[in-house]
Amino acid sequence: MRIEESIKIYGAKIDELLKELIPPYRKDYLSEPIWHHMHTGGKRVRPALCLITCEALGGNPNEAVHFALAVETMHNMFLMHDDIEDGDTIRRDQPTVWVKYGTANAINAGDYLLACAYKSTLASPVSLEKKIKLLHTLTLTYEKTVEGQALDINARAAEDFSVDKYMKMVELKTGYYLACGMVGGAIVSGISEQVVEKIWTLGKTMGPAFQIRDDLIDLTHGKGRGGVIGSDIKEGKASFLYSYALQVACADDKERLCNIMSKPRDETTDSDIKWVLDVYKKYNAIKYAQDYAEDLVKQAYKTIEEIPVEDKTVFREIASFMAQRMS
Amino acid sequence: MRIEESIKIYGAKIDELLKELIPPYRKDYLSEPIWHHMHTGGKRVRPALCLITCEALGGNPNEAVHFALAVETMHNMFLMHDDIEDGDTIRRDQPTVWVKYGTANAINAGDYLLACAYKSTLASPVSLEKKIKLLHTLTLTYEKTVEGQALDINARAAEDFSVDKYMKMVELKTGYYLACGMVGGAIVSGISEQVVEKIWTLGKTMGPAFQIRDDLIDLTHGKGRGGVIGSDIKEGKASFLYSYALQVACADDKERLCNIMSKPRDETTDSDIKWVLDVYKKYNAIKYAQDYAEDLVKQAYKTIEEIPVEDKTVFREIASFMAQRMS
Repeated sequence: MRIEESIKIYGAKIDELLKELIPPYRKDYLSEPIWHHMHTGGKRVRPALCLITCEALGGNPNEAVHFALAVETMHNMFLMHDDIEDGDTIRRDQPTVWVKYGTANAINAGDYLLACAYKSTLASPVSLEKKIKLLHTLTLTYEKTVEGQALDINARAAEDFSVDKYMKMVELKTGYYLACGMVGGAIVSGISEQVVEKIWTLGKTMGPAFQIRDDLIDLTHGKGRGGVIGSDIKEGKASFLYSYALQVACADDKERLCNIMSKPRDETTDSDIKWVLDVYKKYNAIKYAQDYAEDLVKQAYKTIEEIPVEDKTVFREIASFMAQRMS
Repeated sequence: MRIEESIKIYGAKIDELLKELIPPYRKDYLSEPIWHHMHTGGKRVRPALCLITCEALGGNPNEAVHFALAVETMHNMFLMHDDIEDGDTIRRDQPTVWVKYGTANAINAGDYLLACAYKSTLASPVSLEKKIKLLHTLTLTYEKTVEGQALDINARAAEDFSVDKYMKMVELKTGYYLACGMVGGAIVSGISEQVVEKIWTLGKTMGPAFQIRDDLIDLTHGKGRGGVIGSDIKEGKASFLYSYALQVACADDKERLCNIMSKPRDETTDSDIKWVLDVYKKYNAIKYAQDYAEDLVKQAYKTIEEIPVEDKTVFREIASFMAQRMS
């Protein structure tokens, strides 16, 4: 079966189980904002990868399904809190939770999603040893992602931002997160610690690769926010392009770049955005970013070859699937 | 040793260990807002009660110290998120974290505190069985407190709020929370499930009792916010007094009461507050609340007598300590 099909099938299963974990029309002020957010989409790729990895390594995916749900609820908790933190008002053409239900409900509903992640992991039908390992995995991912988010929040419009700082930030913010589901699937399958370690390494190269591509998409196709180009610039987001331009631009360009990035969102004009795009072109930042991301993908494939299992097909398929798109 | 002394000694120990868990001057944008908040005080009563309970039931408090830290970090996570959700700008005469560091950092630093709670619990030097029980306790408390907070947020200025709804809300929001540390201490000591169950019950009567007293303090002495009387009214908070007045007031009083409670904080005048206080007096709400809280305390003492351990001294001391003050 092709991996796209597996993701579809497992994704549908996850959707069903999510409705058991958080009943959609329960009257408690939590499920309504949560399902408003959940319906904005997402193909449940992360939890599906958990189940696919578990199965490929000889495990029983039914034993990994609780952890897969945990990965999905934690993912959505981060999206919900990030939308408030970034001041994003639209997600997939719908108002974000804080816009529709207020900041208080959005913070609290996000907190609830995390409770669901732990509750679901604790209900896993696995041995105590495996359960504790899964809880360690969830907690490590949660902790590191929050640390990455702290760097992200405070890097906005920072003058001393650099490619190194960018990489540290996105390794934390996206790396653990990307690997988490696969790691959980591997733990449930009972595979060796060495395999698990390699999957973490894989996440730490793939995560940044996709984040850089995501940064590039903002400049070429626009992000699902009505397809507008440059919303990261409007937002003052600490992107790869910004980190690289800060390193190579002349003093004047650097100063103006920082000024534009530190402007409040609604004061950033279209000509500001055009100017930043031109600076990125002038310093070849886009080409540099593309090459950098490609290098990371190559490193990821190298890591896959080092995973101590005989059949590495599933990891190659996952990598190639993600290299094409990541939801 | 008197319980006040035990709390002081154990509280100091917790303070020390907190500095190991979250090093105060680490440069990561997380410890600064967290320690700004931590320094606003708190006597670490909750974690101390965890250690005291563990010791009294024959356990080794050194094995409970990780869970005690978890209780304290989760407690502070709730305070940090609640301050944003309630729009509170001052806590113990200091600006709240969201005021000083921005909402994004305050949400994220709260999230980090929860990661610390799980990390600390996972590091407990106890058997796997006990560790899983502790993680269940932490997760249940976290989930139920968030559910209670959801009811609280959405009860503000609600016309159909009632004493029953108030009790449901505070049982969730304060009950689990109050019992959590003691439950953890009991689990580490290895005592029977029956004892643990009674401690949960104790929390569910003591928590609401202290919340009602907290609501009363706002009308008599003012809360640590510069000693101003009626800040709950300004905030439109769903207090016991409000729930009772809604049940017994005549239609006109009820309408005006709802109107005042639904006003934004800065539009509520001093004469609005005075009018609400007079209505509470008119309907004897203050006396009713005092009696209600006293009944709950009596119930709590009854629950203590039912705890299946020979020496109930520690529970009586805890109850009497808390009946005097709760930080």
